Amino acid sequence: MSAAAAASTDGLSFVGLLAALTAIYVAAKALGEGAERIGQPAVLGELIAGVLLGGSVLALINPEEHVIHMMAELGVLILLFEIGLESDLGELLRVGPQALMVALAGMVLPFALGWGVMAALGATSVTAIFIGATLTATSIGITARVLADMGKIGSAEAKIIIGAAVVDDILGLVVLALVQGLAEEGSVSGMAALRMTLLAVGFFAGAVLLGRLAAPWLVKIASGMKVRGVLLVSCLSFAFVLAMAAHAVGSATIVGAFAAGLVLAGTDRKVKVEEQVRPLADFFVPIFFASVGAAVDVRFFNPFDPQRRRTLLVAGLLLVAALLGKWAAGFFARGKNTPLRRSAIGIGMIPRGEVGLVFAGIGLTTGVVAGDTYAAIVVVVILTTFVAPPLLRLSLR
Amino acid sequence: MSAAAAASTDGLSFVGLLAALTAIYVAAKALGEGAERIGQPAVLGELIAGVLLGGSVLALINPEEHVIHMMAELGVLILLFEIGLESDLGELLRVGPQALMVALAGMVLPFALGWGVMAALGATSVTAIFIGATLTATSIGITARVLADMGKIGSAEAKIIIGAAVVDDILGLVVLALVQGLAEEGSVSGMAALRMTLLAVGFFAGAVLLGRLAAPWLVKIASGMKVRGVLLVSCLSFAFVLAMAAHAVGSATIVGAFAAGLVLAGTDRKVKVEEQVRPLADFFVPIFFASVGAAVDVRFFNPFDPQRRRTLLVAGLLLVAALLGKWAAGFFARGKNTPLRRSAIGIGMIPRGEVGLVFAGIGLTTGVVAGDTYAAIVVVVILTTFVAPPLLRLSLR
Repeated sequence: MSAAAAASTDGLSFVGLLAALTAIYVAAKALGEGAERIGQPAVLGELIAGVLLGGSVLALINPEEHVIHMMAELGVLILLFEIGLESDLGELLRVGPQALMVALAGMVLPFALGWGVMAALGATSVTAIFIGATLTATSIGITARVLADMGKIGSAEAKIIIGAAVVDDILGLVVLALVQGLAEEGSVSGMAALRMTLLAVGFFAGAVLLGRLAAPWLVKIASGMKVRGVLLVSCLSFAFVLAMAAHAVGSATIVGAFAAGLVLAGTDRKVKVEEQVRPLADFFVPIFFASVGAAVDVRFFNPFDPQRRRTLLVAGLLLVAALLGKWAAGFFARGKNTPLRRSAIGIGMIPRGEVGLVFAGIGLTTGVVAGDTYAAIVVVVILTTFVAPPLLRLSLR
Repeated sequence: MSAAAAASTDGLSFVGLLAALTAIYVAAKALGEGAERIGQPAVLGELIAGVLLGGSVLALINPEEHVIHMMAELGVLILLFEIGLESDLGELLRVGPQALMVALAGMVLPFALGWGVMAALGATSVTAIFIGATLTATSIGITARVLADMGKIGSAEAKIIIGAAVVDDILGLVVLALVQGLAEEGSVSGMAALRMTLLAVGFFAGAVLLGRLAAPWLVKIASGMKVRGVLLVSCLSFAFVLAMAAHAVGSATIVGAFAAGLVLAGTDRKVKVEEQVRPLADFFVPIFFASVGAAVDVRFFNPFDPQRRRTLLVAGLLLVAALLGKWAAGFFARGKNTPLRRSAIGIGMIPRGEVGLVFAGIGLTTGVVAGDTYAAIVVVVILTTFVAPPLLRLSLR
């Protein structure tokens, strides 16, 4: 049976699934390694691998096939669970006005610029708000990995970048709940927005508060059990339950998974759980990034096709908005302790990642974001992760 | 959204998948723990959890739903990959005539008895051969865990049991290929049987020989790469490729996965790979056992329903065949070194497990095994794992 069978929408056979997974792993890791070798984040290679495996190039995987789609969804859920596990609620609360100001400015400015670009291009206000929102969320994974790769993880600039990125992650999830509601209902009233914000913040706060009470009991019970693998699947079930609860209150499932990770990060089994979640993330996350890449139709980027020039124009303008917005946000860091390289802080916030892609994916699914605009957003995400590391290196030199 | 949504055959939503997985993990681990607490193997609890979650009791999971089915298939594939990783090719080759004789007698006797029972009951010869074959394979996982739980893993009897179980696992896969071919083609000619045996043995030998050359290169290249998770997904891709190759030559995918594990067990990264495969197995394997249990229709076991009495009769007779066949095989151990408790060796071979269930599942899918006979087989597997530990304890005292 050939791997091509994996590209059919229905009735993916088991051997077809094995072929699709093998194609994803080989391509994602080969291109991920290539990306790291030239000083770029591996996630960039995984996205490009997806583009190559997708319907518009090799047609080896179909991100709309049910099993692949469900496994990709599990991938982003486990990714945000893992990011939660790596975060520290205490640090999150201790982040001073510096990180908070950078985070807020880093959301408001790209949002306003992205909205302005789309409004100027004649998009509806729903679409303009949606696209503005996709430019807000910094990818903490990409940011942290780039800083670690540079050996700059202990610098004052790095601490502010990471603190702001964590704040950004929480706020980004609220924005995600907002725009998801907007996409589903077409408009968002002031009251609905307030309600949604309160519900999202309230759910998150409630999940974290109740979770902090429940999590130590959960890991204690799980640790006292003799049966194999019980700690891992207990923590996963906890994440799944919070994800379902988030969904039930109209929030995104990933908000619940992130909250579960954050809460479990405060327990004494954190290291053990992280260690066991890692191979699961290694298994599922590439399926998500490859699916994201595979949803890109490369034909939108043919510069010789006059119809496609608009996509390139949109991508170019949004890239400028994405870069300028985060770069300017760096100057909102008010520190007296050390002379801060504020330019570097802003540049460190530039990489976008999974959350922005989730936004764009929801927009595409609900019809708020057109196919060419989606393609433009994916390219903007790809280019922000591509552009940030060399710029960061320059600015921190 | 309620967990009940997971029970529909089509269009399982993502939240429905999370609900099904949570139900599987909570039930499997609670009952698995309960089983261990009363001195039984955890797999027994996971099977019973599946029976309770299945359509004939709570209807919380549907093993025929595509995503659940594919994840269950990944579960048994990863389980056999892991069993391969835990096996030692050298030990496999060093097992002396003792283990080989026990293994051969432990296949021939239960096969003959199972065939005899079914033939006496008037089954077709295809069905009788199929059911005989399901009684042949000892579960190495269950056997080893029971011995370890008893602190008897170093005894002479234990070494013979484990050696024989390993031989049994390889031969069982050949028998699996044979009966799978038989089920698909309705009969098996002498030439076809020979061809199938040679192909299965040849594939296995070829995969192991070529794999032993390729595996060190694979882990060397993977270990030299900087990108995250590359060792795990390289080894998985290797297992997937061998599984697809096994399928291509008409063998079962699990034969390829087992061969991949066996080959990787000989590399210097064995411990690392095992460590990373373990959480994946913890995630996927309960889905397999729960699905196996969920496929049982408990209504077949209503003793007040005259139509069901046949199922109970079949199960009872097959259980006697399963117990007697393996017990008698223990007496084929010829050792001069120590006075062997041959009764204990045979009893140690009694637990059946995943391979027998895979046989029965294939029989059900292809129509060779009727629903009530399938239910009888699952109960025989459950009862062999239930009966063996107390008998083993008695015989080794």
